Amino acid sequence: MATNGKVLIAQSGGPTAVINQTLAGIVLEARKYTQVSRVYGALRGVEGIVNEDLLDLTQETTHNLEQVALTPSSALLSTRIKPDSKYCHEIFKVLKAHDIRYFFYIGGNDSADTARIVNEEAELAKYDLRVIHVPKTIDNDLMLNDHTPGFGSAARFVTQAFMGVNLDVRALNGVYIGVVMGRHAGFLTASSAIARKYDGDGPHLIYLPERTFSMEQFLLDVKEVYDRYGICIIAVSEGIRDASGAPIVTKLRESEKDAHGNVQLSGTSSLGDLLADQIRAKLNIARVRSDTFGYLQRSFFGCVSDIDQHEAREVGERAVQMAMWNDVDGSVTIRRTGNYSVDYVLDRFEDIAAQTRVMPDEFINSAGNHVTDAFKFYVRPLLGSGLPQPSWVRAPKVPKLFNND
Amino acid sequence: MATNGKVLIAQSGGPTAVINQTLAGIVLEARKYTQVSRVYGALRGVEGIVNEDLLDLTQETTHNLEQVALTPSSALLSTRIKPDSKYCHEIFKVLKAHDIRYFFYIGGNDSADTARIVNEEAELAKYDLRVIHVPKTIDNDLMLNDHTPGFGSAARFVTQAFMGVNLDVRALNGVYIGVVMGRHAGFLTASSAIARKYDGDGPHLIYLPERTFSMEQFLLDVKEVYDRYGICIIAVSEGIRDASGAPIVTKLRESEKDAHGNVQLSGTSSLGDLLADQIRAKLNIARVRSDTFGYLQRSFFGCVSDIDQHEAREVGERAVQMAMWNDVDGSVTIRRTGNYSVDYVLDRFEDIAAQTRVMPDEFINSAGNHVTDAFKFYVRPLLGSGLPQPSWVRAPKVPKLFNND
Repeated sequence: MATNGKVLIAQSGGPTAVINQTLAGIVLEARKYTQVSRVYGALRGVEGIVNEDLLDLTQETTHNLEQVALTPSSALLSTRIKPDSKYCHEIFKVLKAHDIRYFFYIGGNDSADTARIVNEEAELAKYDLRVIHVPKTIDNDLMLNDHTPGFGSAARFVTQAFMGVNLDVRALNGVYIGVVMGRHAGFLTASSAIARKYDGDGPHLIYLPERTFSMEQFLLDVKEVYDRYGICIIAVSEGIRDASGAPIVTKLRESEKDAHGNVQLSGTSSLGDLLADQIRAKLNIARVRSDTFGYLQRSFFGCVSDIDQHEAREVGERAVQMAMWNDVDGSVTIRRTGNYSVDYVLDRFEDIAAQTRVMPDEFINSAGNHVTDAFKFYVRPLLGSGLPQPSWVRAPKVPKLFNND
Repeated sequence: MATNGKVLIAQSGGPTAVINQTLAGIVLEARKYTQVSRVYGALRGVEGIVNEDLLDLTQETTHNLEQVALTPSSALLSTRIKPDSKYCHEIFKVLKAHDIRYFFYIGGNDSADTARIVNEEAELAKYDLRVIHVPKTIDNDLMLNDHTPGFGSAARFVTQAFMGVNLDVRALNGVYIGVVMGRHAGFLTASSAIARKYDGDGPHLIYLPERTFSMEQFLLDVKEVYDRYGICIIAVSEGIRDASGAPIVTKLRESEKDAHGNVQLSGTSSLGDLLADQIRAKLNIARVRSDTFGYLQRSFFGCVSDIDQHEAREVGERAVQMAMWNDVDGSVTIRRTGNYSVDYVLDRFEDIAAQTRVMPDEFINSAGNHVTDAFKFYVRPLLGSGLPQPSWVRAPKVPKLFNND
């Protein structure tokens, strides 16, 4: 029998385009259960718990929650704090004081680890508490998950961006470098491959953190493509590393570190500029451009995958159902059960926590500068329906009257 | 009476999300007239004319042209060449040889100047030729036009980007700088103002090329906003200049110049990085991020204003009608005739050519760091229908049980 008490929800880490779908899924489902006396939301993740910055979401309208669900980024705000066991003890103290009996934490692998420690605190204290970690990350780097909510929409943005870049560079020639988010996992950068429709479309080259980046090989690759097509469109992960494992970008500037000791790779465009400068200097190509997609790719308002929306909503709903009906703790994971269908399973925190999933070898070509069809088959359904399709003019050439050659 | 002969169409300059609507409008309308024997398209603007790289668009299907119309960037490809009178003479030679009697040139003010010279060549040679310049530019900087095709869709992208940025920065705090295109005119950067919905939403500060940029005042502005809101979101034009008129970005790196002698302001993110570094150093704020919207804002496939689409289509259709029915030459301009409605007028090439329209004073606030309501009223209809609306959670606070302050 499920315990009577309150529900608490928090969101953590980098926002996504659909994380509020998960919030709405949890709140709306939790409000259906008689044993749930209140549904609280903590502001700024664990910070809001420790500081008791809590909202009573039981008093939020269903209609507004549906509007919030369509709004990108974390409606309960977020935090980069990674709690140690002392911090987790503070969290538990507040949960207990407020008679929280169901704690849903939406986030990545760090959040799964927090959920694990809080759950242990509860068991030690013999306090009846259900703790469920609900997955979220555009990086798509959580263990056991076929993919994670938030990834599909970010991947769709990257794909649509490169579709436009293909057309833009085709019109004006030159070399283009698009720097995409993804510290350790290249899934998001790799998604740019879906932008290819016509022969000669980019991205012609894709560089991922899963493969060692060599500037020499990079320049050879670019030269080969440019000589063949007269253009070269490149997708590069912000996380590409050299043989020593050092991020290429760290060779450029003193990068700030966040609370997790992670080097800041986004919010600066040095990597794109460095690569562009190298191409100008070594290959002496005049028109070289670089863009860093930056924060637009995770929070642009108006580019979302409907599949991603549905799953983000459902994973929240299922999380509540698991806690209420099965009296269990753990991390909800998404498994692919068909082409295309998914189901949700509860796994142990420790199998998700503080680990990172990267792209399997079968998704990366042997040269390490592009993806395989296996990856395209994997990623396409996640982008959702109604992806735009570029069309070229294909009219016959007019015979020349003069001799210009 | 309109002359019998061929029609030639070319596209020039930076691509837009709707320039192919104009192409389709011209081709489909021109194919209706019995005096038109063929509709040609030149590849890469004037380059394609001089090299006789021409396509026979009479043989392109209507259905594919409708698909092309929905595709961003220049379907006939583009060029940055600015023809001198010798080059224009070469153009005229080819037009005459192919019995081109109607020349439609889609582009910005440089293209209007090219159209002017080619038209003079024809008059000198007593060759019956209709020359019509059709407006296009995301910069919205053409004289006499209320606005230009391509601007509305780019402005919509910038607005939706800042809507997402507002939510992202609100969730994680800090300072954010978004660098927007616009060499001389701030219209596109200013459009970010439409992203504001809630009190405290950004952009809190908007810096335009129309006002002198002072680093000292900039830092004071940022500090004031950050002290009040705990966040600061800034929209900056790539073209901001100091008192001497020198672009701020040129102080940073050797910037390449294009064929027009224009310094390259896009495709590098130095400006955003410089401003971010200044804020970190002088105001000692830890989390400072900058993005340069770069090429996404003009060619992202999937963010378009329906108003912009309609007008881009119609301006092409009207251009053909003017040439066929009125036997005239000139530049088609868009005039606002209601809230919201437009009409199309033919103006003299020289009133458009080689001149740049900037934001009128009534659109910029007195401090020179934001826009007025007059500008918001002006720009809103151009973004089109169905603009997304962010929604915040507004649930009551839960009373605290502990003393945390």
